[in-house]
Amino acid sequence: MKSKLVECIPNFSEGRRPEVINAIVDAVRSHVGVLLLDYSSDADHNRSVVTFAGEPSAVVEAAFSAIKAASELIDLDTHNGTHPRLGAADVVPFVPLDNMTLDECVQLAQQLGERVGSELDIPVYLYEAASTRPEYTRLESVRRGGYEALKDAITTDPERVPDYGPKRVGRAGATIIGARHPLVAFNVYLGTDDVALARRIARLIRASSGGFLHVKALGMLVDGRAQVSMNFTNPAETPLFPVIEVIRREAERANTSVHHSELIGLIPQSVLLDVAARYLQLENFRVEQVLEYRLSDVLKQKSILE
Amino acid sequence: MKSKLVECIPNFSEGRRPEVINAIVDAVRSHVGVLLLDYSSDADHNRSVVTFAGEPSAVVEAAFSAIKAASELIDLDTHNGTHPRLGAADVVPFVPLDNMTLDECVQLAQQLGERVGSELDIPVYLYEAASTRPEYTRLESVRRGGYEALKDAITTDPERVPDYGPKRVGRAGATIIGARHPLVAFNVYLGTDDVALARRIARLIRASSGGFLHVKALGMLVDGRAQVSMNFTNPAETPLFPVIEVIRREAERANTSVHHSELIGLIPQSVLLDVAARYLQLENFRVEQVLEYRLSDVLKQKSILE
Repeated sequence: MKSKLVECIPNFSEGRRPEVINAIVDAVRSHVGVLLLDYSSDADHNRSVVTFAGEPSAVVEAAFSAIKAASELIDLDTHNGTHPRLGAADVVPFVPLDNMTLDECVQLAQQLGERVGSELDIPVYLYEAASTRPEYTRLESVRRGGYEALKDAITTDPERVPDYGPKRVGRAGATIIGARHPLVAFNVYLGTDDVALARRIARLIRASSGGFLHVKALGMLVDGRAQVSMNFTNPAETPLFPVIEVIRREAERANTSVHHSELIGLIPQSVLLDVAARYLQLENFRVEQVLEYRLSDVLKQKSILE
Repeated sequence: MKSKLVECIPNFSEGRRPEVINAIVDAVRSHVGVLLLDYSSDADHNRSVVTFAGEPSAVVEAAFSAIKAASELIDLDTHNGTHPRLGAADVVPFVPLDNMTLDECVQLAQQLGERVGSELDIPVYLYEAASTRPEYTRLESVRRGGYEALKDAITTDPERVPDYGPKRVGRAGATIIGARHPLVAFNVYLGTDDVALARRIARLIRASSGGFLHVKALGMLVDGRAQVSMNFTNPAETPLFPVIEVIRREAERANTSVHHSELIGLIPQSVLLDVAARYLQLENFRVEQVLEYRLSDVLKQKSILE
């Protein structure tokens, strides 16, 4: 039987205090059978993203430990940042890697949600593939109004009854848990501080206002620059290349340009190879032409045989 | 610790007897952790080229086994072919791929050379980046006169004293071992049949006429289209991106454009990732951000620890 591999990419509402970020990362590291792949923090968003992978039960245990640590060390009543959020541990998605289906990741989200609700007394909302109500397939709808709005709404608004845990939020807020396809978080900085331009471009490229089907985007001011902050929620179906082309043209029309871009967390190799192949106008490009791809492929075959 | 990947492309003086070619290829195949990428034979040249890759120590072992097999099965006194050669195993270059430097490949060439000299009693000359004398950076100067001329010269000419092994050649001849950068063969087709334009662009981008240091280029007519045919002999130092930009601008100046491009053979992942990162204007991009790279890397580290 092939070993199952699942990825978990929790987002925490702390991007400034290293001791808090380290405590959360150590909570993940402490679990045998879990591979810590990456973590990065953003001081302006006051937010950190941790990426780890492993066999399903170990990954659920590590996610629970990290959420517990965050709930003890982060106080939403004093937290501030430019990024919308509901909780100390804000969003916890499971992503299927080797020998895993999206449905199996939905089951992991339900297991974790039940424990976070009952053992940590934190309200949990299931989202995307794990959502129990149509409007909660979109993270934005779950997170609308942020922590501040949820404090009252959770007690009064029947639509905001959590899937697990109490019908009230403490200082750790609420946690959104779910299952989804691999996601690419990619930000483009413009050569201007004109946030209105970044917002216009975001509206043009995101699905919610008529743009690309699997693109979410926001315009904001970061490091004194207008930034188009993007999530590619299905980069296999909506590639990066045409989206970047649109952003460049729009920036040019506004007499500015793309200053630089940044990748948050990890990206599947196929997404970057697709960008290179499109830029080079490569005809009949096959991933088998990449040395490393063929190597890992054959090494996997060998390890199965031996 | 990042996993190192090295490529080896030995040339053997046998292109006609399948049983000999198969024995050499099998000697490579027998090593775990080594991927046989390709092998091809030329009957007129009476010569075969084998391409394989893997982690450094495994690749050195596989190269040694192949040289040993060739030295037992090929007799230079009866060998004939149109291609210049010194030995049964004629030329053995190491090429740095992931997380390898050219200097580390020079060390592999020295390790292999020492073993071939002492254990197989075959004279070894180091060439290109591994050469110990200026005139041996060029393969042609190491191979001048071929096996027939070397038989006497190695005993009489102080300039032809080998770097390793005996000052005499047996029937396996001498082996030339060295290190070089990976080579990328890449062709761009223009939206015109104007070969003169392809030649002008080739002259503009190639080192021999003042262009990019590590680019060789020719303009020709292929499938009714003007083609700029390129070899990138050090794609880490001369990346593809700026060269493609120059070709596009020159094509535009001539009121045409790039129709499409093609990759000949294999390309290191890092070369395509560099193209994507430059196109996207990614700041602080690290290959560790590629999911597959991090996964295989972390899994390797764990398997070392456990």
